[in-house]
Amino acid sequence: MSILTVGSVAYDDIVTPYDTRLRALGGSATYFALAAQHFTQISLVAVVGEDFNLADEDLLRHKGIDLKGLEKVAGKCFYWKGEYLANWNDRVTHDTQLNVFEHFQPKVPDNYRDAKYVFLGNIHPSLQAEVLRQMNDQPKMVALDTMNLWIKETRQDLIDVLGGVNVLLVNDSEAMMLSGQNHLIDAARTISQMGPQTLCIKQGEHGALLVQGDRIFIAPAYPLCKVIDPTGAGDCFAGGFMGYLAQTGDHSFENMKRAIIYGSVLGSFTVEAFSVDRCAGIDMAAISKRYHEFVDLCHFHE
Amino acid sequence: MSILTVGSVAYDDIVTPYDTRLRALGGSATYFALAAQHFTQISLVAVVGEDFNLADEDLLRHKGIDLKGLEKVAGKCFYWKGEYLANWNDRVTHDTQLNVFEHFQPKVPDNYRDAKYVFLGNIHPSLQAEVLRQMNDQPKMVALDTMNLWIKETRQDLIDVLGGVNVLLVNDSEAMMLSGQNHLIDAARTISQMGPQTLCIKQGEHGALLVQGDRIFIAPAYPLCKVIDPTGAGDCFAGGFMGYLAQTGDHSFENMKRAIIYGSVLGSFTVEAFSVDRCAGIDMAAISKRYHEFVDLCHFHE
Repeated sequence: MSILTVGSVAYDDIVTPYDTRLRALGGSATYFALAAQHFTQISLVAVVGEDFNLADEDLLRHKGIDLKGLEKVAGKCFYWKGEYLANWNDRVTHDTQLNVFEHFQPKVPDNYRDAKYVFLGNIHPSLQAEVLRQMNDQPKMVALDTMNLWIKETRQDLIDVLGGVNVLLVNDSEAMMLSGQNHLIDAARTISQMGPQTLCIKQGEHGALLVQGDRIFIAPAYPLCKVIDPTGAGDCFAGGFMGYLAQTGDHSFENMKRAIIYGSVLGSFTVEAFSVDRCAGIDMAAISKRYHEFVDLCHFHE
Repeated sequence: MSILTVGSVAYDDIVTPYDTRLRALGGSATYFALAAQHFTQISLVAVVGEDFNLADEDLLRHKGIDLKGLEKVAGKCFYWKGEYLANWNDRVTHDTQLNVFEHFQPKVPDNYRDAKYVFLGNIHPSLQAEVLRQMNDQPKMVALDTMNLWIKETRQDLIDVLGGVNVLLVNDSEAMMLSGQNHLIDAARTISQMGPQTLCIKQGEHGALLVQGDRIFIAPAYPLCKVIDPTGAGDCFAGGFMGYLAQTGDHSFENMKRAIIYGSVLGSFTVEAFSVDRCAGIDMAAISKRYHEFVDLCHFHE
């Protein structure tokens, strides 16, 4: 089944210890859509400015992503300039310009108001809530990604939207910040009372953790990739996770484990090149191959 | 088969964000021996001072640990005072007193010079080398644990002893520091040229990684334990790992995967209480139960 997603479409200036890329296509919705389109049909709700490149629009369209919900308005695209330090774990934001996102009001295309899968990418929680309000019914699955900024600055808006969310994707420190707990299992319990029954904790180079009530699954990270640019890894993780769940329509915990591995696979590809180059460039054969490498990495006989 | 181990037997003053414990029994050999004795017979080579408590000696003896190689000399036991900060990852050393270790010359008891398994706990590499020199033949398996201090200050001594070592246990940053590589797989390749064909990378709260040539296995960390005192977790990890290998006598990569899980089990118990309280207090039934919890945590159907 298809997925409706809202998030940012942006241009990033990215500085790493080894290289620099200017005006790289980025944004949470862009990365998510390009990862999830390997599994199913995606409809993207976002806004871009007059500086949005035709080549970038063609890339999204060529991948079969439905752009009816992508508004074009006067002004410039969302812009972010970030720098990764030598250990890859520390990231410094040098500049953020909301530009066309400042007055953005998402509009869900009519033919997507019945979508069964909704992914609320990392943007202001009131925009995420607006998308949910426009849906005709409660979707089968709503997943939400957020970050420390929104947890801190727009906490009540975030808590309001979480009431309609099934799966929350965050990292360790964000889960603790949101829940006020200092242990991940306690954090999952507190967060489930806000709405999301399933907590998916992205741990970057250390893999991911899935928590649902008393059930826990730990997925390893892929240790073989050479990191070129970590930007978008979390969004592509979400794309692989949600894409696989929407493709299979199976929300069992056992299938969510496989979805987490697909998420890790997409995240691991993404960091191997700047921008969306790698997550858009791979095909399903490469994804399957790496999925089975993951299985080998963590499989053992009792 | 039995394991000969050399390392420190010490008293630690430990400060955590929640509590403090003074004169806690510690040291790399103590923790290793108390973890490994669950699997096989241990002979301990170390030195203690006149202040070594009879109760602590009784604890080790009661667990069946052979203390013929534990010298008692004039002076005081090795002493360490450390403090853990709120995130548990940062540790500050407030004081280290070598005391009786300053002039220690390890003496391997005659009846252990044919030991097939040797664990060189985290002490000065020249003391580790001295133990290997006293062995009658090359053991079936020698494992070595070390730390950034020795890699930095006694690099050549460490490289000399690594020539006779099969398995090196370190953390990520130590593997990179020793090898001069900034990618773990490259680090394993460089280190294997120094001697150890197998690299076991301890990642604390993020589990452990086993690398042997092109073969890689990732073990998860146990996400359920409440941390009281992380001291000795790495030594107990080594104790579970080496203990299981010596008990089974099977050095295949498949069996090393199981050994890594047993290492993680012993490490996870250790942090649940101060000092050696938990790793000495558990029994094989508790170890087996948690081993199977680990299996469940990371198992999934393709």
